[in-house]
Amino acid sequence: MLLAPWRSPLSRALHRNRSLPNARYFQLATVRSNGHPANRTVVFRGFASDSDRLQMVTDTRSQKVDQIGNLGWSEICWYFPKTREQFRLNGSLILVRPDEPEDEAQERRSQIWQSLSDNARSQFGWPHPGTPRSEHSSFEVQPLDPKSPPDTFCILMLEPVWVDHLELRGDPQDRTVYERNALDSWSVQSVHP
Amino acid sequence: MLLAPWRSPLSRALHRNRSLPNARYFQLATVRSNGHPANRTVVFRGFASDSDRLQMVTDTRSQKVDQIGNLGWSEICWYFPKTREQFRLNGSLILVRPDEPEDEAQERRSQIWQSLSDNARSQFGWPHPGTPRSEHSSFEVQPLDPKSPPDTFCILMLEPVWVDHLELRGDPQDRTVYERNALDSWSVQSVHP
Repeated sequence: MLLAPWRSPLSRALHRNRSLPNARYFQLATVRSNGHPANRTVVFRGFASDSDRLQMVTDTRSQKVDQIGNLGWSEICWYFPKTREQFRLNGSLILVRPDEPEDEAQERRSQIWQSLSDNARSQFGWPHPGTPRSEHSSFEVQPLDPKSPPDTFCILMLEPVWVDHLELRGDPQDRTVYERNALDSWSVQSVHP
Repeated sequence: MLLAPWRSPLSRALHRNRSLPNARYFQLATVRSNGHPANRTVVFRGFASDSDRLQMVTDTRSQKVDQIGNLGWSEICWYFPKTREQFRLNGSLILVRPDEPEDEAQERRSQIWQSLSDNARSQFGWPHPGTPRSEHSSFEVQPLDPKSPPDTFCILMLEPVWVDHLELRGDPQDRTVYERNALDSWSVQSVHP
């Protein structure tokens, strides 16, 4: 598979900012059922093999899973502090649920589950996110099986169709817009920042 | 004026992360006219006096100004790397345009303009953002008056009605949701992360 042309500058940014753990965090915007935006920080979990899809993990009980149901469209904003550059990636979201029948998708779901830290895994056994927490409520949950993902665990993927790369360090600045056309090839245009 | 109850943890986060210049950057999500989300990094320019409104600056020619026209609703996602905490602030956007008649708003517009760096100011004299840039196009623009803002310069404010504060460092984690009710007072609820 031929990688999209924005993959190379994005890989470079990831490499140059690798000393910062939060360079692998980005902000994912979706639209709520009332038409208002939602926005939260998410951890990048690599690209799905043989594709330009960015992988994240999420809890089936989280609000973003409902919001994908409403309108599976999203924009990621990814700022790299060390090199002072920003990628905006707009596209549709794809959810790999626990009952997804495709073997390959389930294989990937297991692999990502096994690659998580114990800490990250334990969150999927916590009480329902967003529900009121009493002073006495505890988080003492049964440890989760590190081999096999629970039903609350799913993979979320963004398939970009538009990418806007802004480099604040340029003089004055550089901004490049990538757009995927109907034939699945990408146009590349330098624009004014 | 009584400050909203989320102002104190937010001030603390700003203070504890003050060594990081990008701790004053956040991601602002809006909704495009086609219903898809948009998301970009914006610099925090303080609170408007006697209010809980977060100030930013923007170019009247930028896409977000159009998007506010469509639906003036937004969500800020603000991640603080050093203390590992996130604030999500949802509310309506207010734009202070160059032709805003109110004296106080114009005064604030001039003050913020004068407080910007030369570099930040010069962007408001650049060619129209997002338009194609040819190899020969230059950015040699007339220097802008540092005292008086140009017509392209406006202040954007977010008036929060819902704030979600997540502290990843807690054990397990702490999450507090603030909601403004009809009487303009705030409810505070500890919820499961």
